[in-house]
Amino acid sequence: MRLTVVNPNVSDELTRRIAGAAAAVAPQDVDVLGVHPSGGVPSVESHAEEVVAAAGVLEQVRAHDATSDAFVVACFGDTGVAAAREVASGPVVGMTEAALMAACLVAHRFTVVTLPTRTRAHSERVVRALGLEHRCTVRAVDVPVAHLESGSTHLLETFVAESRAALELDAAEAVVLGCAGLADLVDPLQAELGVPVIEGVAAAVGMAVGLHRMRLGTSRASSFAAVPALPEVLFP
Amino acid sequence: MRLTVVNPNVSDELTRRIAGAAAAVAPQDVDVLGVHPSGGVPSVESHAEEVVAAAGVLEQVRAHDATSDAFVVACFGDTGVAAAREVASGPVVGMTEAALMAACLVAHRFTVVTLPTRTRAHSERVVRALGLEHRCTVRAVDVPVAHLESGSTHLLETFVAESRAALELDAAEAVVLGCAGLADLVDPLQAELGVPVIEGVAAAVGMAVGLHRMRLGTSRASSFAAVPALPEVLFP
Amino acid sequence: MRLTVVNPNVSDELTRRIAGAAAAVAPQDVDVLGVHPSGGVPSVESHAEEVVAAAGVLEQVRAHDATSDAFVVACFGDTGVAAAREVASGPVVGMTEAALMAACLVAHRFTVVTLPTRTRAHSERVVRALGLEHRCTVRAVDVPVAHLESGSTHLLETFVAESRAALELDAAEAVVLGCAGLADLVDPLQAELGVPVIEGVAAAVGMAVGLHRMRLGTSRASSFAAVPALPEVLFP
Amino acid sequence: MRLTVVNPNVSDELTRRIAGAAAAVAPQDVDVLGVHPSGGVPSVESHAEEVVAAAGVLEQVRAHDATSDAFVVACFGDTGVAAAREVASGPVVGMTEAALMAACLVAHRFTVVTLPTRTRAHSERVVRALGLEHRCTVRAVDVPVAHLESGSTHLLETFVAESRAALELDAAEAVVLGCAGLADLVDPLQAELGVPVIEGVAAAVGMAVGLHRMRLGTSRASSFAAVPALPEVLFP
Amino acid sequence: MRLTVVNPNVSDELTRRIAGAAAAVAPQDVDVLGVHPSGGVPSVESHAEEVVAAAGVLEQVRAHDATSDAFVVACFGDTGVAAAREVASGPVVGMTEAALMAACLVAHRFTVVTLPTRTRAHSERVVRALGLEHRCTVRAVDVPVAHLESGSTHLLETFVAESRAALELDAAEAVVLGCAGLADLVDPLQAELGVPVIEGVAAAVGMAVGLHRMRLGTSRASSFAAVPALPEVLFP
Amino acid sequence: MRLTVVNPNVSDELTRRIAGAAAAVAPQDVDVLGVHPSGGVPSVESHAEEVVAAAGVLEQVRAHDATSDAFVVACFGDTGVAAAREVASGPVVGMTEAALMAACLVAHRFTVVTLPTRTRAHSERVVRALGLEHRCTVRAVDVPVAHLESGSTHLLETFVAESRAALELDAAEAVVLGCAGLADLVDPLQAELGVPVIEGVAAAVGMAVGLHRMRLGTSRASSFAAVPALPEVLFP
Repeated sequence: MRLTVVNPNVSDELTRRIAGAAAAVAPQDVDVLGVHPSGGVPSVESHAEEVVAAAGVLEQVRAHDATSDAFVVACFGDTGVAAAREVASGPVVGMTEAALMAACLVAHRFTVVTLPTRTRAHSERVVRALGLEHRCTVRAVDVPVAHLESGSTHLLETFVAESRAALELDAAEAVVLGCAGLADLVDPLQAELGVPVIEGVAAAVGMAVGLHRMRLGTSRASSFAAVPALPEVLFP
Repeated sequence: MRLTVVNPNVSDELTRRIAGAAAAVAPQDVDVLGVHPSGGVPSVESHAEEVVAAAGVLEQVRAHDATSDAFVVACFGDTGVAAAREVASGPVVGMTEAALMAACLVAHRFTVVTLPTRTRAHSERVVRALGLEHRCTVRAVDVPVAHLESGSTHLLETFVAESRAALELDAAEAVVLGCAGLADLVDPLQAELGVPVIEGVAAAVGMAVGLHRMRLGTSRASSFAAVPALPEVLFP
Repeated sequence: MRLTVVNPNVSDELTRRIAGAAAAVAPQDVDVLGVHPSGGVPSVESHAEEVVAAAGVLEQVRAHDATSDAFVVACFGDTGVAAAREVASGPVVGMTEAALMAACLVAHRFTVVTLPTRTRAHSERVVRALGLEHRCTVRAVDVPVAHLESGSTHLLETFVAESRAALELDAAEAVVLGCAGLADLVDPLQAELGVPVIEGVAAAVGMAVGLHRMRLGTSRASSFAAVPALPEVLFP
Repeated sequence: MRLTVVNPNVSDELTRRIAGAAAAVAPQDVDVLGVHPSGGVPSVESHAEEVVAAAGVLEQVRAHDATSDAFVVACFGDTGVAAAREVASGPVVGMTEAALMAACLVAHRFTVVTLPTRTRAHSERVVRALGLEHRCTVRAVDVPVAHLESGSTHLLETFVAESRAALELDAAEAVVLGCAGLADLVDPLQAELGVPVIEGVAAAVGMAVGLHRMRLGTSRASSFAAVPALPEVLFP
Repeated sequence: MRLTVVNPNVSDELTRRIAGAAAAVAPQDVDVLGVHPSGGVPSVESHAEEVVAAAGVLEQVRAHDATSDAFVVACFGDTGVAAAREVASGPVVGMTEAALMAACLVAHRFTVVTLPTRTRAHSERVVRALGLEHRCTVRAVDVPVAHLESGSTHLLETFVAESRAALELDAAEAVVLGCAGLADLVDPLQAELGVPVIEGVAAAVGMAVGLHRMRLGTSRASSFAAVPALPEVLFP
Repeated sequence: MRLTVVNPNVSDELTRRIAGAAAAVAPQDVDVLGVHPSGGVPSVESHAEEVVAAAGVLEQVRAHDATSDAFVVACFGDTGVAAAREVASGPVVGMTEAALMAACLVAHRFTVVTLPTRTRAHSERVVRALGLEHRCTVRAVDVPVAHLESGSTHLLETFVAESRAALELDAAEAVVLGCAGLADLVDPLQAELGVPVIEGVAAAVGMAVGLHRMRLGTSRASSFAAVPALPEVLFP
């Protein structure tokens, strides 16, 4: 099985780290490929950047569809996932929806800790699309995505503080990391908090592999029916 | 006051008709300009086309921001509206949110009749973002947007039939037209049904003018804070 | 266009100030008339006073319907609005629903700051009728409506404090003033907070004008069908 | 214990029949008194009539508070109940909320069959205030309240037909009679349908007696704090 | 009328106190019997213990059905209530649902104070089944049920502190005691707080008596149809 | 990895078929074991049978915990899953929650087709616990579980009919099979309908394997903290 993980920003380093996080949990017979758009934004921290990033996700899904059994979109907020479902032949899983579902399976209530603060609305959009407002709160640390470029363990204290607030004030029983590129934070944060810490790319890999093994793909019945002729969007 | 109405598809004819519908309800001292992206899709009937159209909305909002007091986005589903709010200096109103709000002011329950059928999910997304599921149902007629190119009165019977089903089965008391380019259907449909028929571009014009007169613009506090440097997305 | 603004309490001074706030945002060709019931309550701060005030709203809507193109009801909680819709020939807009809708157009989340504290339930009733619990919180300052009689700028500090709590604790991005008669607070509060401050009477004027220009009135299909013969309720 | 049942319309005959329905289920040591306003409307079939009726409910609650341990408001839609809670010394129970609660105790899903059709919004208001949309649908038969003046058994067939539709199409397992004055319909309808048929006045009596025996009254903490000086509203 | 109150744990002392609380509010012609399972758990503080307790509730309902007109299940979380409805000939009322309904009748917002902390999810399950999330918060004090064995007045201070937090932070206007066996706390807590304090067993008695007087039982239409042959579950 | 699939009824044949369905989608390095309780009910078609079945699930989870890395509970309605989470060392996944999550990943709206009709409430309980009412309807065919004993392909026509109703009337885009033991229906039903058909045991296997690979287990923070000493429940 070939699983393509699309990082919607243009960072090589983040793409490599995200693909690594995916490969770490994928079964041995799954070949993980990490890709990013040919142009666009260095990070997705606004609705405007989401527009550019979604065009990039579409570009990559079209480019790799013939050789991919399934896609994971590695952007918290699941930018471009609905569109990718129309274009990809196999299943497409967003890291946000996957993380929230995994959290439901291990905790009664949980909290997303996303970044930066202004993107809380992006997380809330997915929480509400799934109907999970009664089980999930959204918190944020005000760190730009750029700070994750070379790893995220330097953010441990920041995440511990916000997560502890979630455990105490929101009755959270698990924490969802609200950004791709935080896989190296899972173990130390879990050690500090003593509750499950959920990384969405890893969760999405599990679900994409599961769907593939069930031979399930996106329904073509209506909302995600194939789109015959779509013009390119170009990046300068 | 200069009000720019962005049609997110590339049809000159539809843009002209949409701008006409906007101008028809705008106060005399409001100058209405209709624009469309420099490239993209002939119609927005899928999530993938929404991605392209949103890039086009961004392009036009950036191009006209310096000379516009407010924007209306004329696409049912409000594609690109959140992003436009970050980029525009003045308020931005989507035709879908405006139509649903106007419907709330004249009816207890109401129904969107959108087109084509596969886009019901786009309408439902806005209905849910506003929390109006308890008052609004979404129905569709399976007509491609292309059929509206030169007017929509030939669709009267189709809309009458679906709207009557809404009045009888959904207890609807008003009908929201679920696509731009249907302004010429308002009067004949209203005459047939005897209930308010709401056209979203017109509704959005009223709300954009109202916000402007109150000197209200998008909050920069968090979710829609300005986005400093956004790369272009190009259309071939 | 003649727009009649009904203040449901019996204060001449508040009626004058509310009508002034309405006129300030109305287009030049709109003639704004402020009225209040012939009897009733000096302020609406309880459900019982709402009953009296609603009778007063009905009285005034019946008295002025022949000469009014549209009505605005200037009571936070939208007391009597549903009844007024059955009786008025033109559209009727409540200041609460209008304020919440305007807030949706400029902010992802927002907070009503109402007064006095015991009336939070009245605001929450409208928030829930519109389905906006996921975007709107309700806070209060414990000031009686009587304190607004001769202006509200002396309440600036109180509103700043409660609004700051909303921005920090509720992730609000805009503030809705939860009472009529606070129009003079909009500018200083906005200056202090740096986020949009929304006054409902002004918002309702914009929406009523917009509906009128679209020639939209209340649906007579079912819930708001005309009421043929309604007895008077008298004020001693 | 003295329990006062307020019929908010001015029909002597309906008041007598409603009080009889209440007395039939009240324990022996409960003295049931039926009252109606000194003026107002012959029936409550619109929001405008609700305004008048609510004034009448207030009038009667004030008149009988000194001699009543609890009140039941016998109007589907619970007109005036919130206001009555502020004015009455003892607990106040609306027939609609009581009927919905009783239905929850005997059925997973259920349906209100109200009358006339235009009042569905009134039932839905209470359903939503209680949060029961997921368990309760609202249907209507288009019969004016006046037709209940001298009994309702002639409506049996009409109610059987609408109730059967509820059982089949809405998965209802019980039926709530959506109007006062239908007590004589309970037994024949139950016999026809084979499912519980719930009459709200009877349900409200049980709950008012229960609250009284627990010595529970309306909280004065905030929303329903006492209202010191309320002017009269007069009926001509 | 014979009313059987099932305490789902095996404590004789708690059963006696719960039956006493029920008898204290029951009308004179109601004979209250308190029972507990022949085996099982000393307290119900987890989902696993709920499984055992539900088996015990079923055992007792089957054992006493022939001689009972109605049942009250005295476990916060309403463990086994749905199953008991299928097995009992008369109505079955859970203490949690009854307490929440009673709270709705006397307060706009209210708070459950349950124990121990880990059981908040059990309370929330019932709050959500009734749709009351918008009016009810759930708090907890971290006291094991065993501490209630010989009365609960020693917990007064703990409950006062948590309840005061609810009144201030959650805008609660009444408090629901989230465990059986707290009846002796009602009066002192109410005296301290000045708001209604609701004990669920007492509330359930009132509702069970009310249903019985209306001759209402569980609907057999679908979800709670009778279960013909159910094997015993044994306790060692 | 050892994955234990618990069938909560006592049928050897169904257990074998369920384990087979699980093994068919499990990766090669996953050893699937199918078990059922030592006593209890032949099928779970009522809330009362759920009580017995939950005791059986607990029995089996305790018996196999030492040798299992994860559990799947193969009962539509997820009977006993919350309790099993407290008792199992590794993750526990219910087939219902897993099926609904998988459906969310491949369709905008979908429908559960469960059996028999009386168990719709059990499916709705899980739909609501996940907050998916806006995307998922529940339908039923009135077939007893016993009819699945030796396979389910004879039910193809029945399922096709109900599923077609879902596609047309509920706008469903995928179908969830609402019972264990229907794995042999997936392919023929999918062939007939042309939309994804989701079998919950297979979906649960994918998610359990995914959680295991992420080394995620149930949070012990509060709701699902370990339960120290739980008495046995015996089956005669």
